[in-house]
Amino acid sequence: MFLLALTGWDYGPWVERFRQAAPDLQLVTHDQDYDPTEIKYVAAWNAPDGLLGNLPNLEIMFSLGAGVDHLLKRDDLPDVPIVRVVNDDLTMRMTEWVVLQVLMHHRQQRAYDAFQREGKWEPLWQPAADAVRVGVMGLGVLGRDAAEKLAALGFQVAGWSRSEKQIAGIDCFSGEAGLDEFLARTDILVVLLPSTPDTAGIIDKALLGKLAQDGVLPQRFPAIVNAGRGALQNEDDILDALNNGVLRAASLDVFQQEPLPEDSAFWQHPLVTVTPHIAADSDPAAIVEGIVEAIDRHERDDPLINIVDRGRGY
Amino acid sequence: MFLLALTGWDYGPWVERFRQAAPDLQLVTHDQDYDPTEIKYVAAWNAPDGLLGNLPNLEIMFSLGAGVDHLLKRDDLPDVPIVRVVNDDLTMRMTEWVVLQVLMHHRQQRAYDAFQREGKWEPLWQPAADAVRVGVMGLGVLGRDAAEKLAALGFQVAGWSRSEKQIAGIDCFSGEAGLDEFLARTDILVVLLPSTPDTAGIIDKALLGKLAQDGVLPQRFPAIVNAGRGALQNEDDILDALNNGVLRAASLDVFQQEPLPEDSAFWQHPLVTVTPHIAADSDPAAIVEGIVEAIDRHERDDPLINIVDRGRGY
Repeated sequence: MFLLALTGWDYGPWVERFRQAAPDLQLVTHDQDYDPTEIKYVAAWNAPDGLLGNLPNLEIMFSLGAGVDHLLKRDDLPDVPIVRVVNDDLTMRMTEWVVLQVLMHHRQQRAYDAFQREGKWEPLWQPAADAVRVGVMGLGVLGRDAAEKLAALGFQVAGWSRSEKQIAGIDCFSGEAGLDEFLARTDILVVLLPSTPDTAGIIDKALLGKLAQDGVLPQRFPAIVNAGRGALQNEDDILDALNNGVLRAASLDVFQQEPLPEDSAFWQHPLVTVTPHIAADSDPAAIVEGIVEAIDRHERDDPLINIVDRGRGY
Repeated sequence: MFLLALTGWDYGPWVERFRQAAPDLQLVTHDQDYDPTEIKYVAAWNAPDGLLGNLPNLEIMFSLGAGVDHLLKRDDLPDVPIVRVVNDDLTMRMTEWVVLQVLMHHRQQRAYDAFQREGKWEPLWQPAADAVRVGVMGLGVLGRDAAEKLAALGFQVAGWSRSEKQIAGIDCFSGEAGLDEFLARTDILVVLLPSTPDTAGIIDKALLGKLAQDGVLPQRFPAIVNAGRGALQNEDDILDALNNGVLRAASLDVFQQEPLPEDSAFWQHPLVTVTPHIAADSDPAAIVEGIVEAIDRHERDDPLINIVDRGRGY
């Protein structure tokens, strides 16, 4: 039996999708009556406290988003493989948002927005993409796709990841040893790291101070684009860096506290673009398909893919 | 001898680039003293009236931008091949701007901008790119590149051109016969047509009324993105369409009159993004290189490329 635990979400569309994709799947939701010993699979985002620890015959747990940091922190985490969502739909959406924000910084859209409000026709000097260095932190499926699409548009793209990677057309840096060099050549930093104890608060004063200060658009770069997790960013440090000219612009989709509190200085900051954690929504159709496929694999004894490594935290 | 005729431009950077790229080239500018019978090549954007007709030994005329419509209208147009600028740098820049504007419409950035001003955290339902139909009018070098990059991001991309074209991954329509079908499947229309007598005012009430009204984002689509020429658009019709809900948004880089007059309703229209004809600037370095190369080809009797067809007007 398959349990869908989605506190705080409208789970109607999810149930409907599961019924369409796998009519034979016995499905219950967390607020229905069910026998915990019968649950073999659970798909969760926010599940009621204690629920996950009370499923003695659980075989697989699915996370319904790309991030699993909030699940790994739970006290009731079951000792079964956790499979996270990796699908082309989520990747496409994330790349759309990242490319949009990078282009907004590169093409000085916020300056033109201000000119438009003032009725001012003022062309600005504009370098082409191949004069601009984008750096992508995190080279998982999402980071890699964004890096490749940005490179296709002409940007000089580098990537940084914990472990060494090789990607055609992307200058890859890795580990502590490679971080400073990566940051020093980066005009627009895209953060797509997972949230783990190692990456908590990684976007801080020290990191921001190492970004390139010699970019072709000194009044616009360096800029940061965070679509990873709010826990990655030290928000006071970002604000200080913006106010001190260390950082020239920021696009933030994620925050330490969500919804972003009404009194956050980000809302009205002229150098900041705030979006409400919408960079890559989970689309029920695409995700459900991936889960149903994973269950099929498991039931015919094929190895699971996209299993979370609890040691690394993603 | 090579004549640079650039009324109204700061031609300093151009002269410098020519000197660097071709130190042996004898170069004069339109405001210097020169013997008109010695001029074999002229590169022009806005040249003084009558100048171009008074060069008896001219062999080639170069246009310093992608468009040549303003040159073809001149009374003093010499009867020599006109070579227009086609280079990777210009194409890269145009695609950057087009992809930025398409993504702004697709990802509802203007709605999020408004939410940010109000301090409102409000995620909107968002389709992925593969649920959105972009249509590119004009499949020259610029249109084709933009179409391919948009398709790589996941959009359903179609193209329309006067004559039949075939481009992998792009659904190609052509001629009068194909126009209505093309428009009827288009949620976001990108206009990259040349300005010719045939295309004057083509973006009008009739055309806008044929765009898809059944897009996945009915409050945002159809939208138009014009980076071609101002002469392509009937501006009163665009405003009417925006005000009547026939059109839901517009990004305009070009206008019938430039600079856009202070009293234009586009400036403060909430559904319009105005940029001051900056989609694809002419970069002296890249363009000069192309011109020097063309002169080399001509002097060793190789055929010229990118010659303007005066009959077609581009």
